[in-house]
Amino acid sequence: MRKQEIPLSCFSSCLLYLHLVLYFHETVYNGTNAADATSAIVAAPQGANLTILAPQNYFGNIVIFNDLITLDNNIHSKPVGRTQGFYLYDTKDTITAWFGFSFILNSTDYQGSINFIGPNPVFVKTRDISVVGGSGDFFMHRGVATLRTDGFEGKYFFGLRVDIKFYECW
Amino acid sequence: MRKQEIPLSCFSSCLLYLHLVLYFHETVYNGTNAADATSAIVAAPQGANLTILAPQNYFGNIVIFNDLITLDNNIHSKPVGRTQGFYLYDTKDTITAWFGFSFILNSTDYQGSINFIGPNPVFVKTRDISVVGGSGDFFMHRGVATLRTDGFEGKYFFGLRVDIKFYECW
Amino acid sequence: MRKQEIPLSCFSSCLLYLHLVLYFHETVYNGTNAADATSAIVAAPQGANLTILAPQNYFGNIVIFNDLITLDNNIHSKPVGRTQGFYLYDTKDTITAWFGFSFILNSTDYQGSINFIGPNPVFVKTRDISVVGGSGDFFMHRGVATLRTDGFEGKYFFGLRVDIKFYECW
Repeated sequence: MRKQEIPLSCFSSCLLYLHLVLYFHETVYNGTNAADATSAIVAAPQGANLTILAPQNYFGNIVIFNDLITLDNNIHSKPVGRTQGFYLYDTKDTITAWFGFSFILNSTDYQGSINFIGPNPVFVKTRDISVVGGSGDFFMHRGVATLRTDGFEGKYFFGLRVDIKFYECW
Repeated sequence: MRKQEIPLSCFSSCLLYLHLVLYFHETVYNGTNAADATSAIVAAPQGANLTILAPQNYFGNIVIFNDLITLDNNIHSKPVGRTQGFYLYDTKDTITAWFGFSFILNSTDYQGSINFIGPNPVFVKTRDISVVGGSGDFFMHRGVATLRTDGFEGKYFFGLRVDIKFYECW
Repeated sequence: MRKQEIPLSCFSSCLLYLHLVLYFHETVYNGTNAADATSAIVAAPQGANLTILAPQNYFGNIVIFNDLITLDNNIHSKPVGRTQGFYLYDTKDTITAWFGFSFILNSTDYQGSINFIGPNPVFVKTRDISVVGGSGDFFMHRGVATLRTDGFEGKYFFGLRVDIKFYECW
């Protein structure tokens, strides 16, 4: 796997044209927090159950979520939308996840959805996933979203900061 | 979250170059309709099962589907392909879903696959998801697909109209 | 569904600018191979379980995986990264799957992630899925990945060859 020689003129140039910073906050259902939970384990490997994260660094769990989005890391701030979708835990010897989800923004500034997929190695400081499209104000947008953990209380609650950068490439 | 000032010249222009209208039809397995079912619940939250949609607006269910695609809303019309993939229900107080799936078209007009992801808030009249790529006749295509419910018989059968619009942006 | 008349000037041109050939190798957990297994069944349809692939061509199974990536089809070659994500089986009368996953490459040649979604009809010789984005060396990349089965030992082990072609379109 040598790097192929590519004439420079064939590389695209990309221009950043919009940068949003948003936060979301998740509480995973653990069997006793139904009123507060914003997500639920819906699949688990052989021998595990749906209220306790699976024993090998959660490997084999799928979680469905519906979390509030805010402009700062305070869960009590006025929400500007919701994020909906799923993640799955995919490593036995550390914690990594794979996400597929959308932001549905509904604020005075932005109306529309943004769609994401990509890997989230939780213990890496910043993790980049792909923005693959959107609707409304985000029609045909593409870009990269950088995830940072911003808040943790036990393993059933976390906050994420998301830097979304939309690029135009040509 | 103020809208960032962006010079107009940085926005992309997009040109619609192909518009397809297709329908698909799904019957969810409910424990008694094995011969007709085109999809099955394969995951459910704690306390729910795999033949009854989960109690809180189906929150926590994952459904795998393999449905026929037709050119009109008649399930008995000649199929032009199949749609395969999954959706999950992600809201407790209303019905919304998140889809990841492909159209595999096999007709005299089109051969190839189209890949989609995005949110489907079922009670909104039109819902836009992303077309993120394809193969065959849809090589490197991107666009937006608009979903409309077109037929409902109880909660285990539905039809969807899909307007696929492929865009070229620059 | 007639093909719409489109002026030729509206079609995009695409230029191949990078072609990688990589292999990955998977052993599905079957209840007795915990030490070797790189993936696990985490969801199954009504009546099936998590250690035996479901009876109708695996229809309704979801598998989470974390497999080594190598430069050739020898599972013992030096790994250049890992692939993480999921697939689901979505046909009753033959074997087809739908994949959502990432390559995380970590070699002297390449550092970064590549994100994929798309259908994998296992018995078709070559199957094209979409490369929808990436990070690091693969920032904002798009393309097509062609999957080929390369090695099979029973139904709980397989190898895949992946030809990734990145394109610039305009």
